[in-house]
Amino acid sequence: MSILVVGSVAFDDVASPSGSAKGILGGAATYFSLAASYFTQVRVVAVVGEDFGHEQEEVFRQHKIDTCGLERANGKTFRWGGTYSDNLNEAKTDYTDLNVFETFRPRIPKQYADTDFLFLANIQPTLQADVRRSMNHVRLTGCDTMNYWIKGAPKELAETLKLVNVLLINDTEAKMLANETNLPRAAQKVLAMGPQALVIKHGEYGATIFFREGAFGFGRHPFRAPALPIEEVKDPTGAGDSFAGGFMGYVASQKELNREVLKRALFYGGVMGSFAVERFGTERLQSLSREEIEARFQIFRELTHLE
Amino acid sequence: MSILVVGSVAFDDVASPSGSAKGILGGAATYFSLAASYFTQVRVVAVVGEDFGHEQEEVFRQHKIDTCGLERANGKTFRWGGTYSDNLNEAKTDYTDLNVFETFRPRIPKQYADTDFLFLANIQPTLQADVRRSMNHVRLTGCDTMNYWIKGAPKELAETLKLVNVLLINDTEAKMLANETNLPRAAQKVLAMGPQALVIKHGEYGATIFFREGAFGFGRHPFRAPALPIEEVKDPTGAGDSFAGGFMGYVASQKELNREVLKRALFYGGVMGSFAVERFGTERLQSLSREEIEARFQIFRELTHLE
Repeated sequence: MSILVVGSVAFDDVASPSGSAKGILGGAATYFSLAASYFTQVRVVAVVGEDFGHEQEEVFRQHKIDTCGLERANGKTFRWGGTYSDNLNEAKTDYTDLNVFETFRPRIPKQYADTDFLFLANIQPTLQADVRRSMNHVRLTGCDTMNYWIKGAPKELAETLKLVNVLLINDTEAKMLANETNLPRAAQKVLAMGPQALVIKHGEYGATIFFREGAFGFGRHPFRAPALPIEEVKDPTGAGDSFAGGFMGYVASQKELNREVLKRALFYGGVMGSFAVERFGTERLQSLSREEIEARFQIFRELTHLE
Repeated sequence: MSILVVGSVAFDDVASPSGSAKGILGGAATYFSLAASYFTQVRVVAVVGEDFGHEQEEVFRQHKIDTCGLERANGKTFRWGGTYSDNLNEAKTDYTDLNVFETFRPRIPKQYADTDFLFLANIQPTLQADVRRSMNHVRLTGCDTMNYWIKGAPKELAETLKLVNVLLINDTEAKMLANETNLPRAAQKVLAMGPQALVIKHGEYGATIFFREGAFGFGRHPFRAPALPIEEVKDPTGAGDSFAGGFMGYVASQKELNREVLKRALFYGGVMGSFAVERFGTERLQSLSREEIEARFQIFRELTHLE
């Protein structure tokens, strides 16, 4: 089934202990789309500038990603520069030039009205809510956010959280959102804000999905998927968005929507995140095969499953 | 089969956001012994002072822990005071009174010569090596250490590491020991120092076991076990030693010694650690049943295993 992602497309300058890359295609919607494209048909709503050319467009086309919702605006595409030191979990932002992204107002093409699944990448919460309200027929909505909105737009974010089914954030964001240092307690507080399921990403330690009582099945037991122990993380940029793309893409590819599907989706999220960080930018995500993805899924299983 | 632990027995004063407890029975050898006692016959070599009385002795006796190796010295038992704030992963040490532990020289009773498994809890590395050399018939030796020895006695520790089969340490210790910030690379470096297997504990994120190529089976794939998401950690003291007790105790209870046994042992380590932190001191570890342990093992399995 189809999935629509609304978010950023960008050009990135990235440096890490493994090297550097300049002017490479990035942005949450880009990483998400590429990761999800191995599982299902992807549609993208984003804005780019006049510097976004044929070469970049081809990356989407080659993965059969529908770019009818990709708006061309006068000006330059969003640019971000970041540097990773030995602590690869956190980037030092060198600069953020929002450019055409500053006045981005998502417009959903009419032909996207039949979209089955929706992912709201990290943008201003009111815009997320507007998109969600205009897509009332979706089966499931996933959502990302960040510290900037948790601190700066808590009321707007609270409204958005009432409209989404699955929230995907990291440990720090979950604790900040719930104002609670204990993670399982923070998870229960966040679930009480709206989502039926909460995916908390732990970086190199994997991710946990918490369910609201009765949502997608029975009980309150969470489920934990690992991350792959990787000896050389070249570029962590987009790992979270690739995780979301693998997670949501797998969910959208399944007929049923239950806990077992969401648990497997958590594994596929980790799988796509692990590929993303192996090379700079989207390079690795552009060149995968479904066989490679399944082989890595097996490695994730062997990493955690007893005989 | 029998297992011998050499380490500390102490009285602890502990404070955490959940309350406080004074003068409670603690020490690495105590937590280890109690956790392991649910799986196998445990022998303990440690030193206590004149303030160690019938009440404390009874805790060991009730779990059929052999205390022939418990030396009574003139003076006071080792005392430690610590406070946990919201970050329960790290204790602020209020005081450390080594007392009789300061001059502890482990003496192995003759009747312990037939012991099958050995665990060297966190003591001076040269003492660990001496014990190991005097127990040449053991099938497998587990070992713990800490930052204090990694920094302060690296040469002595290097000698000890050549003599042990499984090293159990946490993320920070592994990175410091290998002088390497990437965890999988750090693991490979530590394995090259001697141990055939390395258990790295990630606190609330569980633990990973790394194998040296060809040790206990085939391949180089690591294995990861979760920790239980716990809404109220009352007292983290002894979690690592209880983990080691569950891990080594389970290994000692099995006829075979292979990767599948070590993987299951990693789960039992997590199970015993999760019980330990539910109450202050050793209270929870004193009152368990094998049925409760198996039920929690099932929860750990459901937390990580796909259908």
